[in-house]
Amino acid sequence: MFNDGGKIILHRRELLRQVNHMKFASRLERLQDKALLNAMELTETKDVISFAAGFPSPETYPVEAIKESFIQVLELEGKEALSYCSTSGYVKLRKLIAKRMRDRFELDFKTEEIVITSGSQQALDMSGMLFINKDDVILFETPSYLGAVNALRAYEAELVSLPTDENGLIMDSLKQALDRYGERVKLIYVIPDFQNPTGRSWSAERRKEFIECISPYDIPVIEDAAYSELSFENRLERPLSFYDKKGQVVYVGTFSKTFCPGLRVAWLCAREDLMEKYLILKNAADLSSSAIAQRQMAYYLQKYDLDDHIKRVVGRYKERRDHMMRVIDREFPKEARYIVPGGGLFIWIELPEHKDSRILLNRAAAEKIVFIPGGSFYPSGVKNNEFRLNFSNMSHDEIEKGMTILGRITREYLAE
Amino acid sequence: MFNDGGKIILHRRELLRQVNHMKFASRLERLQDKALLNAMELTETKDVISFAAGFPSPETYPVEAIKESFIQVLELEGKEALSYCSTSGYVKLRKLIAKRMRDRFELDFKTEEIVITSGSQQALDMSGMLFINKDDVILFETPSYLGAVNALRAYEAELVSLPTDENGLIMDSLKQALDRYGERVKLIYVIPDFQNPTGRSWSAERRKEFIECISPYDIPVIEDAAYSELSFENRLERPLSFYDKKGQVVYVGTFSKTFCPGLRVAWLCAREDLMEKYLILKNAADLSSSAIAQRQMAYYLQKYDLDDHIKRVVGRYKERRDHMMRVIDREFPKEARYIVPGGGLFIWIELPEHKDSRILLNRAAAEKIVFIPGGSFYPSGVKNNEFRLNFSNMSHDEIEKGMTILGRITREYLAE
Repeated sequence: MFNDGGKIILHRRELLRQVNHMKFASRLERLQDKALLNAMELTETKDVISFAAGFPSPETYPVEAIKESFIQVLELEGKEALSYCSTSGYVKLRKLIAKRMRDRFELDFKTEEIVITSGSQQALDMSGMLFINKDDVILFETPSYLGAVNALRAYEAELVSLPTDENGLIMDSLKQALDRYGERVKLIYVIPDFQNPTGRSWSAERRKEFIECISPYDIPVIEDAAYSELSFENRLERPLSFYDKKGQVVYVGTFSKTFCPGLRVAWLCAREDLMEKYLILKNAADLSSSAIAQRQMAYYLQKYDLDDHIKRVVGRYKERRDHMMRVIDREFPKEARYIVPGGGLFIWIELPEHKDSRILLNRAAAEKIVFIPGGSFYPSGVKNNEFRLNFSNMSHDEIEKGMTILGRITREYLAE
Repeated sequence: MFNDGGKIILHRRELLRQVNHMKFASRLERLQDKALLNAMELTETKDVISFAAGFPSPETYPVEAIKESFIQVLELEGKEALSYCSTSGYVKLRKLIAKRMRDRFELDFKTEEIVITSGSQQALDMSGMLFINKDDVILFETPSYLGAVNALRAYEAELVSLPTDENGLIMDSLKQALDRYGERVKLIYVIPDFQNPTGRSWSAERRKEFIECISPYDIPVIEDAAYSELSFENRLERPLSFYDKKGQVVYVGTFSKTFCPGLRVAWLCAREDLMEKYLILKNAADLSSSAIAQRQMAYYLQKYDLDDHIKRVVGRYKERRDHMMRVIDREFPKEARYIVPGGGLFIWIELPEHKDSRILLNRAAAEKIVFIPGGSFYPSGVKNNEFRLNFSNMSHDEIEKGMTILGRITREYLAE
């Protein structure tokens, strides 16, 4: 089989223990936070009750419809579905997404302004790639999505935290940061709807103020809309992109939370001159996203009713939120404060300022209950008295049991 | 539906024409080569005979077996298949890949030394991310894979071309570059088997010399094995990774050329301390690759015979290579030189030095025949008298017709 015909096994691995001093890129120094990786691993451990990761509920996945879609796609267009896709993505899927954004959010992105990405995570990574040089400043609404912090931290920017209240990003802090950092600000990252980790949404007023405030600048904004459709009261807000008259806002959407994450189908919308650059980066990053996953998704959107599916998903999550709120009200001490989230996947708990949620996590983990301590969600100016609870991924009984125990541990800890 | 109840449509897009001066990352300046994007677009044009892109032949895709695998995966483990996968990838698939590399190439990577990537392109991008700071030096065997050049160029390194002969990388040029650039060299990229674009392979002797030459240094090497199994004479060479005793070589494999590219399933092997860092980057880049695509692939590997499938694919490609060689011998002028490739997807043609393959492409494109001019494959020190022909993706008749016309155009051009 081998050209030299020989069979000498070199036992390479046995010789591996030699000291080696490879050099790594400096960006690696900033990427030591493995909280998310660890959360995923904890979640995979069998008998742990996990409120950690932001996973949707697998019981909601429309497995039969997805199977039927794969069968049809492979029978009708198997060769195309197994080939490379164009870098921008399957055009029919992009058209369906454009239509859906128009129908649901009155957004009028053209097909040419949409690129399919491998999860919205890739859209965030590509945005760092496009806009960020070392020592640039990125402004984050905080607390913020850990995955965005990780993706953007890799580009060696200075990450600046902007505080929020129950109506969204605080405008004064945004104005101060724009004044203070001036031309160093190269990107703003926000999640206006049912955000991760707090579950809060920006008011319509705040959205308009935000666009007014930033439109004199030529700073791009990433609007992460991962949770936008998960409203428990069927009250959707108009996206920032709706108010944006300059094409300054880059909109990122995904099917991971409304449909399922295993296909890795998400999308990024940007005005055409930006899209041209995004496509160069997408091509360098992975050539294109999976053709078959995109065609499966397009088939599903045409033959099934995604809105109806989302209604059922949201109904399920609302039940779980309600249940979790009931157990919290019953079991948690009053000093643990929260705001009832109107949608999304998370509840955010605030302990008294001198308390540390990492201590709470250690004690909870000893009783096989996990969550993510709040410090992980701050790109800078870390606060440690908060934590995030996910309610979408655990059953009624697991919520009952896990939150009862966590309530007891919290009472004991706060009484110290 | 919206919180403000209103229906005022702002016609955002009409207002978009305002001048805007967004700042982009400096890496964008290096990424203006859209040759690959354009080649893909040309290939999608209906009545063009394309020898441009390196696509496998869709007729070889085992559509029925893949359909059956998707059905089984969704019926047996639908919820897991539609959920997030762990960052390192589906463990059963990684075990199957480890076993396969052992059986085929006597490589003994452990499961923990393997991460699943979204195409081998992502593995290349992640390697730039891991090793490259601005102004570092990357050594390329040249001509080289355009996608690797694009992925690594984005990290703002100086890309240095090392010449090759019919036995692979020329060792003297490697030694000179290591002397000349010293500690600035942070990565070496090579494709030892049936490489893109020349179709040539390194001799066993050259492989051993290479490892001897680099092992005193702590410079990582990317061994791109995309074409390694596509040998027309069933003669596989031992990979560089086989000879590497330090774990200095990072091995990148893919199912895109042996199976199908539409699933985007590839893998990267690296010793454990490197893998730890790769996983942090993979997590930042896209969290994880598609769970369902990985499980489909694992199911296929267990229930079907991939080796047997590859034999059939390789048989098909060998026929097409033979046919293309016959037409070239018949129609092309003797001044167009080539080496018969022993495997892979490409034939590399060299014109006399003062000739320019871009002129040839212009004339060919006017007759709806396309290929990629050789200059695109040089990260530096561009030569323009060569070009690449792909033979895997076109039918017997298209090869006959397209190459006959291209032969005539070449004769005419060389006679000028």
